[in-house]
Order: sequence, then structure tokens, then C-alpha cells
Amino acid sequence: MENKNISSIGEFGLIDIIKNQFLNSKDNKDIVADIGDDCFCFRSGKDTICVTKDMLIEDVHFKKEWITPQELGKKAIEVNVSDIAAMGNIKPKYALIGLGIPPTTSETFIKNLFKGLKKACNKHKMIIAGGDTVKSNKITISVTVVGIGEDRIIKRSGAKTGDLIGVTNTFGDAGAGVFLLYKYGAKYKYTKDERSLILKQNNPKARLDESSKISKHLTSLIDASDGLYISVGLLTKDSNKGADIYMDKIPTSQSLKKIFKEENKQLKFALFGGEDYELVFTAPEPKTELIKKLIPQVSYIGKINSSKEVRYFHNGKEQKIQCRGFKHF
Amino acid sequence: MENKNISSIGEFGLIDIIKNQFLNSKDNKDIVADIGDDCFCFRSGKDTICVTKDMLIEDVHFKKEWITPQELGKKAIEVNVSDIAAMGNIKPKYALIGLGIPPTTSETFIKNLFKGLKKACNKHKMIIAGGDTVKSNKITISVTVVGIGEDRIIKRSGAKTGDLIGVTNTFGDAGAGVFLLYKYGAKYKYTKDERSLILKQNNPKARLDESSKISKHLTSLIDASDGLYISVGLLTKDSNKGADIYMDKIPTSQSLKKIFKEENKQLKFALFGGEDYELVFTAPEPKTELIKKLIPQVSYIGKINSSKEVRYFHNGKEQKIQCRGFKHF
Repeated sequence: MENKNISSIGEFGLIDIIKNQFLNSKDNKDIVADIGDDCFCFRSGKDTICVTKDMLIEDVHFKKEWITPQELGKKAIEVNVSDIAAMGNIKPKYALIGLGIPPTTSETFIKNLFKGLKKACNKHKMIIAGGDTVKSNKITISVTVVGIGEDRIIKRSGAKTGDLIGVTNTFGDAGAGVFLLYKYGAKYKYTKDERSLILKQNNPKARLDESSKISKHLTSLIDASDGLYISVGLLTKDSNKGADIYMDKIPTSQSLKKIFKEENKQLKFALFGGEDYELVFTAPEPKTELIKKLIPQVSYIGKINSSKEVRYFHNGKEQKIQCRGFKHF
Repeated sequence: MENKNISSIGEFGLIDIIKNQFLNSKDNKDIVADIGDDCFCFRSGKDTICVTKDMLIEDVHFKKEWITPQELGKKAIEVNVSDIAAMGNIKPKYALIGLGIPPTTSETFIKNLFKGLKKACNKHKMIIAGGDTVKSNKITISVTVVGIGEDRIIKRSGAKTGDLIGVTNTFGDAGAGVFLLYKYGAKYKYTKDERSLILKQNNPKARLDESSKISKHLTSLIDASDGLYISVGLLTKDSNKGADIYMDKIPTSQSLKKIFKEENKQLKFALFGGEDYELVFTAPEPKTELIKKLIPQVSYIGKINSSKEVRYFHNGKEQKIQCRGFKHF
């Protein structure tokens, strides 16, 4: 029997193995969302309790030279809150902080990391309620966030034929930011626009308010942690649908357009860059105007169909897209 | 200002920094236990929901040569369930699996790891409900377990003067097991008794049934993940009490006694070895006989007093103990 290694299977191959062979959440009626969504959610009385965990590992997800310890702390919370936002009108309440730290790490680093963790928790009215610290050879931040809500949760799998596909803001900045850091390092004298791209990479903001404002009008919802291309793919696959995406409608920032003048490059960052942490959602067409009124930054970039295939169009012409999303393995 | 590094502060120094400066769980009346206990616990309607997370990191907590992937998966669940057991009559329900894996890891390793995770979950009627996989340079298993119960939880801080201190079974095997692995490696031809010590290191069993049987009679409760000495220290400190411990009453196994014939060595493993995952509890003296009837393996090893100091006695003579517990940093 061939024994592949993980880099040849890829992260989503690995998730499929886990999902197919080991997940047994179908047996339990209290579970309302599992590994296939951004959070694990279960019912407890009238509450829905959502639990999410995301790990940030040094030299995989960040480099110490690129991000301050405070920013890192804030980011570790925001990326988890983004998963909570991706379930609809759920309030994040508690954070548990799992830390793996090399013994040579300074006390100041840890204190500043926790300042960042606490700032982000305060912003979302969350409580740091516990955690675990162990020795490791790379800084490892494993945050668990618990959220609670009473409304129905919005899963990835609810998109209906004819729904429009919306996004909460621009795409591509975070990916372009990390591209610049790789190319020029942290000490380079960046322009204001370049710094704005790096800021989006280091200071993501979970779209929690946005989600609570619009979730009751949505049929499906996901956060775009791994790039727009992958998010649209997951959402349509889990909904058993297809989609047409109009690339000329994908919103990008003024800074991205200034720094990367070729539209092709802008779109590559938008589709494959990852870490923008915007929400991608579907809604029935009659609701889309109301949603746009509630969040003026919303853009509609495509439409769900029953084809089970995602097609990309640019000014009316179909484009062949090769998946180049950030793969963890 | 002096900027110490973490190895000079130690794990408990680090937890103190976090506890004092960043924890804000006191503000919330739904929170019934926080970082100072084995789990974070909060109220939701009539339920108490307990969340715990423990990380196992390759070459810190285990070596791949010493433990099979299946054993590792089981252990990752058991150590978290042990934290749930340490809160009293709480049922572990859901497990979230966070995995950091080097890209060279084989598919077979991951499948066997998950077989172990699933076996342990099945044993405790738990569901693997989600998770997260990322790339890392060392295998990192960050499990979150969610438990639910209706009974009052038993904290570390409830010990009363005059209570007896009990333990659920023998101490020292797991520490002695890892000592043997360090000394002779995994391929050495071990005797049956030596293998039994290694088995206790690699196959810990959370004392969940024991906890649910006796918890209503207890005043305080903790699991002994870092050794008996540290557990007694934490329990008395959090209860604002002291204790007398009778070292000749600390139970050790026949295998430990056979392999390490000096009593002094047996006691060192028992006090400082760690990873036995037995429960340490306190109960009012009138309840102690009933508890012993419910769990015949229980031994009473000491008594709580109001001195705020833990003293160790051997055959009536006070012993000076130097803390040699396993420190993560």
C-alpha cells in the first residue's frame, strides 16, 4: 500500500480523511455544525454554543521580525473571532490561550503578546478565561474561542440556486502585504500604501458586527481565511451547487491598485492571497439591496447555480483559473 | 528593567503573570472556574459547560520512537478527559483536534493517530466534532475537550481544615516509565514490570468513573498531571491552607517496588515523576470510609491544616523536600 506523506495529500485531502473516517458528529442531535464549518456548534438549552480553535505557528503563519508581539496577540484573537462571525449572530464570550514557547523567549515578549490578546478580547467584550503553557521550539499560539447566541447559525452549506454571492469588503491586501514582507523584509522603507497592505496582513479585523447585522438575511456564510477562491469553492461544494464569479466585480483597495498596477496581479492576490478575513456569503436576490444598505462596503461578485462547477468570468469572457491558493502543506 | 526569559521564570511564574495581569474572569458571574483550575467552566442555563485544552508537543512531551501513533492519539484524549474528571461529575462530550504536522509525516501515521483519538473518544462516548490542521516542524497535538454536567463542580480551592487528602491509585509508575525510556531507549528488552511502568507513561487513563462516583462527597479536587508534590502544593495554595503528608502512606505499585528497590527512589518518582493522572482530593473525615468503599484503590496520604505550609513526614519524622517537579521551562 502506498504511504503518501502529508505534503502530497494537502490540507484539504487531510481534512477529507479525518472527515470521512473519524468524524462521528452525525450521531448527535445536539450538534448543529461540525468540522465542515468554521466552528463546531452545539445546542445547550436555548443557547447555541460555538467553539473554534486556530493555531498560529512561528515561521509558518508569521515571522517574529514581521509582526510585533502585540499585533500577534490581537491577530490570534481576531482570526478566531472571524470563525465565530462566520456562523452568524453569535457573540464571542471566552478565550482560552494555549501557548507553546521556547525557553529563551523574553518575559517582555510574553507580556506584550498578552497585551495584544487582551486588547482584542476587550474590543469584543470577551474574557480570557484560561489556558495552558508548554515548552516548544517555535512560538505556537493555539487560541480557543467560545461564542454563544440564540439565533439560528448560518452554515456554509445553505446556498440556493439564484442566490447572489456577496463579500464584506476588499480582497488581496493581506496577501500582497505578506508578499512585500517576503520580498523586502520588515526593515525596508515602505510607502504609505505598501504599509497599508502590510497592516491588513498583521492587523486583520473579524467582521463580527457585519455578521450580526446581516446574518438573518443570509443562506450561507464563510470567512475567507484561505483566499476568495478557496472560500467560494468550499461554500459551493458544501451547498452542492455551482457558481459564476465575475472577476471584474471583485473589490480591491486603492492601495493594492496603486502598488500593483496590473489587474491580473491584483486579482491573483484577491483570489489566492488569503488572510483577508472578509466574509463571503450568499443571499436571495430580493434581500441583496437591504444588505448593501446595512453594510455599504458589500459587493456582489457572482451568482449561485445548480451546475456544481465554479466558473470565472472577466468582462463576460470565461477564464481558466488554476488553483494557487495558500496550502498549509 | 530586567527582561528575564521564560526559563528563569518557570511555568508557574508565567501562569502567575498571566493570571495577575490579563485574566478578567472575575467580572463575569457565568464563569464558575477559570485558569486556576483544570478546566474553564461556565454556566449555560441549567448546564455547566467545561472546556479544557492540553497540548502535546513532539520532543517535549513525547518522542516518536517511544510511543505508537495510536497510543499518542489515546493519550492526547485521556490527558484532557483527566482535566474534565478533575472538575467532578462532568461528562466529556466533544473533542476538537488541533494538529500541527510536519509535511513529511506519513498518511499512515495520521490515520493511526486518529484511530487512537477515536478509540479514546468512543471509550468515553465522546464525539470528534472538529479541528484544525496546520504545518509545523514538530508534531503538535492541541486537543480541546468540552464537557457538560448539571452537578456542582469541585474546584481546587475548597479544602477545609481537618479534611483528609486522598488519591485514587498509585503514584510513580509514569515517571519511572519515562525514566527508563530516557535511559535505555525504546528498543531495549524490558522485563514485564518495566513494561508495566512504560505502559502507565504511554497509556494514561483518566479517572472519570472514579470522579463521578465520589465527587459529591469531596471538598476539593485536582488531577496529578505534574506529580503529587505539585498537585498537593496547588490544592493547598488555592484553598489557602496547609497540609501534613505522610510519605509512608503514598501508594506505589508492585512493579515500581520491584524495579526500584530503594524506597527513596520510589518516593521521588511518586512525588516528582508526573503524568500519573490520578486524582488528588480532599474530603471531610466522616466521608472518607464511604469513599474508600466506592473506590477500594483509594489511599489517604495526609490531612489539611490551617498552617499554609505543606510538611512531609516519613514514619513520624519530618522530611525536608526539595522541589524537583518536572518543569516545562
